[in-house]
Amino acid sequence: MALIVQKFGGTSVADTDKIKAVAERVMALSKQGHQMVVVLSAMSGETNRFVNMAQHMQSIPDPREMDVLLSSGEQVTVSLFAMAVKAAGFDAVSLLGDQVKIQTDIMHTKARIKSINADLIKEHLNSGKIVVVAGFQGVTESGDITTLGRGGSDTTAVALAAALEADQCEIFTDVEGVYTTDPNICANARKIDKITYDEMLELASLGAKVLDIRSVGLAKKYKVPIHVRSTFTDTEGTWVVEEDKTMESMLVSGVTYSKNEARITFAKVPDTPGIASRIFNPISDAGIVVDMIIQNTRAGDMTDMTFTVPRTDYETAMKVVEKTAKEIGAERVSGDPHIAKVSVVGVGMRNHSGIATTMFHILARENINIMMISTSEIKISCVINEKYTELAVRALHDAFELEKENIPIED
Amino acid sequence: MALIVQKFGGTSVADTDKIKAVAERVMALSKQGHQMVVVLSAMSGETNRFVNMAQHMQSIPDPREMDVLLSSGEQVTVSLFAMAVKAAGFDAVSLLGDQVKIQTDIMHTKARIKSINADLIKEHLNSGKIVVVAGFQGVTESGDITTLGRGGSDTTAVALAAALEADQCEIFTDVEGVYTTDPNICANARKIDKITYDEMLELASLGAKVLDIRSVGLAKKYKVPIHVRSTFTDTEGTWVVEEDKTMESMLVSGVTYSKNEARITFAKVPDTPGIASRIFNPISDAGIVVDMIIQNTRAGDMTDMTFTVPRTDYETAMKVVEKTAKEIGAERVSGDPHIAKVSVVGVGMRNHSGIATTMFHILARENINIMMISTSEIKISCVINEKYTELAVRALHDAFELEKENIPIED
Repeated sequence: MALIVQKFGGTSVADTDKIKAVAERVMALSKQGHQMVVVLSAMSGETNRFVNMAQHMQSIPDPREMDVLLSSGEQVTVSLFAMAVKAAGFDAVSLLGDQVKIQTDIMHTKARIKSINADLIKEHLNSGKIVVVAGFQGVTESGDITTLGRGGSDTTAVALAAALEADQCEIFTDVEGVYTTDPNICANARKIDKITYDEMLELASLGAKVLDIRSVGLAKKYKVPIHVRSTFTDTEGTWVVEEDKTMESMLVSGVTYSKNEARITFAKVPDTPGIASRIFNPISDAGIVVDMIIQNTRAGDMTDMTFTVPRTDYETAMKVVEKTAKEIGAERVSGDPHIAKVSVVGVGMRNHSGIATTMFHILARENINIMMISTSEIKISCVINEKYTELAVRALHDAFELEKENIPIED
Repeated sequence: MALIVQKFGGTSVADTDKIKAVAERVMALSKQGHQMVVVLSAMSGETNRFVNMAQHMQSIPDPREMDVLLSSGEQVTVSLFAMAVKAAGFDAVSLLGDQVKIQTDIMHTKARIKSINADLIKEHLNSGKIVVVAGFQGVTESGDITTLGRGGSDTTAVALAAALEADQCEIFTDVEGVYTTDPNICANARKIDKITYDEMLELASLGAKVLDIRSVGLAKKYKVPIHVRSTFTDTEGTWVVEEDKTMESMLVSGVTYSKNEARITFAKVPDTPGIASRIFNPISDAGIVVDMIIQNTRAGDMTDMTFTVPRTDYETAMKVVEKTAKEIGAERVSGDPHIAKVSVVGVGMRNHSGIATTMFHILARENINIMMISTSEIKISCVINEKYTELAVRALHDAFELEKENIPIED
């Protein structure tokens, strides 16, 4: 008998029939003797409906009141779910964020969990109930409702699994798991059976949107094994777990890309101390987050500075940097919103030096110019012209033979 | 400066524009220096939508979960309302039933308020906030969400007014107040300026649906003056208050009617001890509530027993009584679902014996046969053939000259 936490997202509980289907799934495990904790999101579409209503009331809706509004969404799904379970003759109880005492800080609309009181849930589990917890929501010390931001239900599930010392945490979504790359681009993309927290963190931040990045960090911290899988099939999905020996033999786990960035270059900047802060402070003051930064030294006392910003902030950023360029006496500032970042990720590359070389070689072979390079311990990213994205992804996926199941999976 | 509690029902907050309009109204009073507590219902239609979803999950939805579901409705309106207030530059805070600590018993879907902690509301009022409270909902001692049943937001408003010792409690609705009779039947119907709690209780239970009957009882107990008025005009509505001397001069306050009942008669029942319980126990066991009961003694050891039941229960009741009739040896049992109860209500009739005589005389003059009569201290009701309802109401309204403003109102 195991204690299992299962989280179902908005598309999995989009209407009453889908809620019933999910309840069946949970009850099947309960019937096998497992203790079940279910975490639910709001019905898909509800959050957008609430945001639209709120914006009609106040141009920038008050964050505290926004959380009161948004948290009503999960209240609907958890109560309906509990009814479906009871209708089938099982016992169930719904619990909201404040009832579970999912205590958070006071950062409304993007709160962080500080503590969870697992006692009430355990009590209900021990009396034979399926416990249905509203995801995405918590409560401050003074009793105000908070929400955890987009993807917050994943975080709720992992945090509960940690607090309850659950045997597993299953995140159900509308895809079958994590793939070696985007199946829409590369027909050879293969579902990954097992991946480390660190790899998942790199993939998530790069846009593999199956799992909220915060929840992966939390899972890593508390060593909670996550199983990402599809609501609509019984197929095994992807396990996100601690690193083990067998995983190192796989050099690269996946190829990922992002088209959400734009490039900005300052050419011939006087290379004096403090120049970086004079460039980046005004950008940061405009609320724009810079991702990659590369500085090249030129002959003389000149330097070039290139960096990327979110594409949605590109026009605002260009206005800021044109002003800065005059102030600091840069010769020229240029930008390009049509770039893409292509990355290969894998824990195996830590002990293997050839990955970067292979990546550069493959891109060169395809005549793709590399504009920027950045690396982490388990990731190499290249910025290229956006139009070559798909070509680059497919070529790299082929080169690293990601379509092959090349490590034995031990469970 | 007064402390004013205002309650707005579902039709008053049916969409975001209406919520904005209501917020304007509240802010106008706040600007005058009054401390404002606003109690809101869910948007009209939401409760029905939730009930339909719940019934799709479970034929008889679990009451605890039903309350979790239903209470999400007010959560939406209070947060949107607070945003509207903040958008206009005033300060506001929304509070849910558990945050105000509106503690109730554990009778889910029809809970009764046990206590209210007014401290948090007072604190917010003293810091200059408009306090927006979710109506209709409370919380049990163990932290479960409860709801107060239909009309529960009226009860929330009156209970808060009592706990806060508010100067007035205004119930906003889609009519202008309480009328001397149904304006759809009688063009002469006049809005009543002032009415006692007791009269209102009699009118409410008879179907004048502007105010929930429980809230009137609560207002009477705590001497909370209620002002029932329209959301959509600035006209004064009806004050529901303690009786004062001036009110006695008005013999009759209103004429009301109900078409929701049906009549059942046992003819020639053996008149033995215990016969009433043998007739009414099976009806009560079937969950049917009997209203009026009349027993006539016949010659010999026989009696006739006539009573009324809710019209929706008529067919079920007839099946029950046909079985009973055989068991107790009644000669015959007959029923009539096409009846109406017409009543005149007024505190003045306590000290005046002519009201009943006048009522019987007027009905006789119009050739309307009286089937049953029942009286209370401040009410006389006659059951008649349904088809004469409108005729009877108009004739009685004319006879008691209710179209005339016949008492001076002192405020």
